[in-house]
Amino acid sequence: MERFNTYVEDNAERFIEELAEFCRQPSISTQNVGLEEMAELVRARLERLGAEVRLIPVADGPPVVFAETSASGSAEDIRLSSVEALTAEASVEPLGQGERTLLIYNHYDVQPPDPLEEWESPPFEPTIREGKLYARGAADNKGNLMVRIQAIEAYRAAFGELPLRIKFVVEGEEEVGSPHLAQFAQENRDLLAANGCLWESGGKDEAERFVIYLGLKGIAYLELRAKGAKSDLHSSYATIVPNPAWRLVWALSTLKDEDDRITIDGFMDHVVEPSAAEMNILEAIPFEEEKIKENFGIPEFIRGLSGVEALKKHLYEPTCTICGFRSGYIEEGSKTVLPSTATAKLDFRLVPNLTPELVEQLLRQHLDRRGFQDIEIAFGVGERSARAPLDTPIAQAAVAAAEAVYGQQPVIYPTMAGSGPMYPLSEALTIPAVLAGIGYPGANVHAPNENIRLADYFEGIRYIGELIRRFGAAE
Amino acid sequence: MERFNTYVEDNAERFIEELAEFCRQPSISTQNVGLEEMAELVRARLERLGAEVRLIPVADGPPVVFAETSASGSAEDIRLSSVEALTAEASVEPLGQGERTLLIYNHYDVQPPDPLEEWESPPFEPTIREGKLYARGAADNKGNLMVRIQAIEAYRAAFGELPLRIKFVVEGEEEVGSPHLAQFAQENRDLLAANGCLWESGGKDEAERFVIYLGLKGIAYLELRAKGAKSDLHSSYATIVPNPAWRLVWALSTLKDEDDRITIDGFMDHVVEPSAAEMNILEAIPFEEEKIKENFGIPEFIRGLSGVEALKKHLYEPTCTICGFRSGYIEEGSKTVLPSTATAKLDFRLVPNLTPELVEQLLRQHLDRRGFQDIEIAFGVGERSARAPLDTPIAQAAVAAAEAVYGQQPVIYPTMAGSGPMYPLSEALTIPAVLAGIGYPGANVHAPNENIRLADYFEGIRYIGELIRRFGAAE
Repeated sequence: MERFNTYVEDNAERFIEELAEFCRQPSISTQNVGLEEMAELVRARLERLGAEVRLIPVADGPPVVFAETSASGSAEDIRLSSVEALTAEASVEPLGQGERTLLIYNHYDVQPPDPLEEWESPPFEPTIREGKLYARGAADNKGNLMVRIQAIEAYRAAFGELPLRIKFVVEGEEEVGSPHLAQFAQENRDLLAANGCLWESGGKDEAERFVIYLGLKGIAYLELRAKGAKSDLHSSYATIVPNPAWRLVWALSTLKDEDDRITIDGFMDHVVEPSAAEMNILEAIPFEEEKIKENFGIPEFIRGLSGVEALKKHLYEPTCTICGFRSGYIEEGSKTVLPSTATAKLDFRLVPNLTPELVEQLLRQHLDRRGFQDIEIAFGVGERSARAPLDTPIAQAAVAAAEAVYGQQPVIYPTMAGSGPMYPLSEALTIPAVLAGIGYPGANVHAPNENIRLADYFEGIRYIGELIRRFGAAE
Repeated sequence: MERFNTYVEDNAERFIEELAEFCRQPSISTQNVGLEEMAELVRARLERLGAEVRLIPVADGPPVVFAETSASGSAEDIRLSSVEALTAEASVEPLGQGERTLLIYNHYDVQPPDPLEEWESPPFEPTIREGKLYARGAADNKGNLMVRIQAIEAYRAAFGELPLRIKFVVEGEEEVGSPHLAQFAQENRDLLAANGCLWESGGKDEAERFVIYLGLKGIAYLELRAKGAKSDLHSSYATIVPNPAWRLVWALSTLKDEDDRITIDGFMDHVVEPSAAEMNILEAIPFEEEKIKENFGIPEFIRGLSGVEALKKHLYEPTCTICGFRSGYIEEGSKTVLPSTATAKLDFRLVPNLTPELVEQLLRQHLDRRGFQDIEIAFGVGERSARAPLDTPIAQAAVAAAEAVYGQQPVIYPTMAGSGPMYPLSEALTIPAVLAGIGYPGANVHAPNENIRLADYFEGIRYIGELIRRFGAAE
């Protein structure tokens, strides 16, 4: 892989500038900001790679960018921004069409950047400080997307033909729960056919060990809404006029107890305890809990949990989280107002058996039984959990590539604690998936000052190169 | 009073324009917006009345506008904007210096106008629609202030000398709990000496009956604050990282039960049930509950209360109200975030014996006993409740004036459900007070589309004229 690595080194500056260009473009799916522009940027970059690219429309959302380095991949399509960056040899080679097909999943949307005042540099002005690139989306996941594109460019520059076919699915709705991806996957089963899937996300843990994940939790995101008088009132009427903020507080307090046990009727009955074998896997995971607590600035975990017990709750249990609560006067200072509305945004991270539909049904029944028929549930998005075993070719290639690049056995998690739309693209299409990427615990994903370390970035390009080689060799 | 009434009719257009001028000036104390400008407007208008006016500084707040029509009141100070509006006779009379002194309390600050999108016309662009003037502050209480100023102008134009001395205290911090008024009152006891006090607020009830109030509840306004990780996190960490929004929900749910009974340890022990005699007064109050419910758009009161039981809770019981709750992501759409902070703004409306200091102490002890030592209490403002009996000269004059202007016995409430800084200016200085004004139940006080009815406004000027005459006659 020496020619590959030399090419990456020679093009390092341009590679970072290309990532910065991606990060400069806001693409906030929850606010419908900049998505068309970002899809065009991704399309243009994939076309410069020589791939066939299509923007596939989805119902009322931003398009899916689909690309493939297929049989018909024509070398004359290669239009690099700096033409001299590709060797003359590479520019006349075919793109490659090995026996196996790798499906690469990424997304071009990002989370909203607020609270803005906590950013040390503006979220959409990528800034390098102390070897890190700070920008919304740098880690989640424009960095991962660009690493894969540039690794393919470097592989072709170094070796000419790719040893496999590659398909890209880059959607624009991951941060709002991928509402159209399941339908997209069903409608394009043949187009998406592949032998393995490389998912977005992943990276290093607190002790700098490379981590590979074999699955994702599901999610149900919804709002609970309470209403009172037809408009906000003077708070002196609180003696006799119902307060929706109190209604919502009382309703929420029945969903989870002070020990963080979810108390929605029947909910925990669906949660399966890990088997003895699974507990062994958990115990093999190095869990740097002191570093995690220090990073987050908390004295202890919930219930004072520690070690494998904390890890078990983290990976094998669902959550019920207040992501936002708004009612009445929320600015600085005082206002003596009786609110007319109250809204809580909840997300549930789901384990197998707990589907989003089931969660909504259990929640409705639970609230109704306790007299909270007035609390409206506005269902947002839902995703099922997905997990794959460790003995698939893609997982084996991912592990071997990690050993080659990082010089040690990777840590293997049965699932991430986070969610993603893996189910429709993997389990539903019987394509086993693996998550591996360039993140690290200080990346501030979904938070102010999101960043990646540039060293991780370039290691990540080499890792993708190794993965392509090993998975393509069909060993 | 015919000359008085004729003068008011002749100057009606200018009077409304003068009120509109007051309402055009934002003066939002909780945001420190426009207070100096508003104090100057009040000073200028009182000076045009011929009063001696001083802006008295208070520690770190906006000044108190103090005015008196005292012995030294010189007629040449009168500088009306339309000079012809004052008769030649009136302009050479002294201001008046009868045996009694009336202390008039108003405030020149207003509540914030949000939510702005619910206003049908901009809050600081006074607009007349269907006989009503819409503007933030029109009812609470720039209208009441201007009614009193214009009534004095009309009285002097009609009769020359006033039959009493009048003092104005117009502060700029009422909507944030008058944090400096108690000290101001203590430091200026002699300056403020008076035989009766006319408080701001008051007006007509749901059945168009004029209402006189003899007191105000107290208030304690504070924030409860919970903290979690040092910054917002990806919500997948909610498995093990404490969520301050849940902490706050759990803590709040211990303060009041679903029947709206305040459950703070020891709190309700301080609440005195009304005596049999007081219950008789309550039963004499016509309580238009169906109209109230219709105005507010609610199907029923808390607990389904009705009649004298609802009124008793409304007037003789304290409240514990969530005025605002904020945590995490509160905009449209979804964001899967684990919040790092949660804040609830609470107000307690207080009855006698429940002082703000006692409330804070009981709340702290209650939370600590239940393991909520981590919940911070940030105390905002506090006011004690104040009540006066019905047999004082000012109350008797207020009742007689109401009979003369409104043609019927006023409804007499022992207290308002609302609060105000009456205690330091009345009970602490032994000046009995009465509340009477130009409001009505549809005034949307503290809410979008605040308004007064112009017919109430001009009746209100006549009412103040009658009150001056009767209280001044020392009958």
